[in-house]
Amino acid sequence: MNSNRMTLPPEIKKFIDAFSELPGIGPRQATRLAFRLTHDRAQHIEQLAQALRELRAITLCEKCFFPYSSSAGHCPFCSDPSRDTGTFIVLEKETDLIAIERAGVFRGRYCIIGSLEKSGALDAEHEHRLATLQNTIATTAPDGKAREIIIAFSPTTTGDINASRVAQRLRSYTQTISRIGRGIPTGGEIEFADDETLAEALGRRSSS
Amino acid sequence: MNSNRMTLPPEIKKFIDAFSELPGIGPRQATRLAFRLTHDRAQHIEQLAQALRELRAITLCEKCFFPYSSSAGHCPFCSDPSRDTGTFIVLEKETDLIAIERAGVFRGRYCIIGSLEKSGALDAEHEHRLATLQNTIATTAPDGKAREIIIAFSPTTTGDINASRVAQRLRSYTQTISRIGRGIPTGGEIEFADDETLAEALGRRSSS
Repeated sequence: MNSNRMTLPPEIKKFIDAFSELPGIGPRQATRLAFRLTHDRAQHIEQLAQALRELRAITLCEKCFFPYSSSAGHCPFCSDPSRDTGTFIVLEKETDLIAIERAGVFRGRYCIIGSLEKSGALDAEHEHRLATLQNTIATTAPDGKAREIIIAFSPTTTGDINASRVAQRLRSYTQTISRIGRGIPTGGEIEFADDETLAEALGRRSSS
Repeated sequence: MNSNRMTLPPEIKKFIDAFSELPGIGPRQATRLAFRLTHDRAQHIEQLAQALRELRAITLCEKCFFPYSSSAGHCPFCSDPSRDTGTFIVLEKETDLIAIERAGVFRGRYCIIGSLEKSGALDAEHEHRLATLQNTIATTAPDGKAREIIIAFSPTTTGDINASRVAQRLRSYTQTISRIGRGIPTGGEIEFADDETLAEALGRRSSS
């Protein structure tokens, strides 16, 4: 909204500037949110600010990069002794991991490499996380080699290109490397898939 | 996202619960936002929390209900002596007011009565704000009667029904009562209109 910013109180301008930069929140939604919150009690605003500030206590796991509470002291996946240390799923983001956990059919480990760029190339952070996975496998997997690595990228052009790149990087660290089955419609997004489709896609994975 | 909440750190759960209740932010967007913010520096999170907390310094004007900074001490519209005290626009929300200000053709006063319910009836808050407008007119308009009140509700079924109700409440407080012209496509929303359409709609207003 190309609004006449002169009439807006500085506190509201500041809020709009700060929040409109967040993913999925543009200037229009930030503006509506600001006005809505001015109707709320100070106590509610304080609660929201507190919930936001508490996120500072979150740490990313050094092995799988899933966020966990510093007060808990460990990642719920990497620290779980009941999970198989010989199989890994490589995926883009936390919400994809949650969708796969929800399907309830995978009991191995994860590596979140971060959102893939449409431009195609793997960036320094992706490479760092893949190197971390290689190191984890070398030091913790039985015989220093994974039994299987499943690449679970959304079946889009970007996902396809990068699945090949990632497979190349990891091939010598595993007996088998596979890609999550195409039970998911091509062009779709992993996090929107229902549990059954996800479970089938895991079951029908093909070698990469 | 009907996620397996067991695996989420308590700080992230708390954030999702708090932010998914805000208008336009559902559980899915709150979840993405939470994960995204766990990648940000603590300093950035603190900035967002601070921008949020500063909204507590916002007060709603007792006359027109536009939010203003307590530090400024007055509403930018009601305190502006260059604005006509004999004409008023009654509208639903702050973003509608900003759109009208942006069009730059109205130099009177405002009354924001709050978002109208689809069910149709005016609630206690709407009635309170209309009573406040009646009182403002009686005490500050020349001769204790407005020259004109323009009702600027979006031309939807809800807007049409409530425009009649509001006109009924205000008829004895003004020489003329009008409705913003139908330059705006029926079914559309005031805040999305471009400046020219809005200016024309104000110019072609019809009596109510």
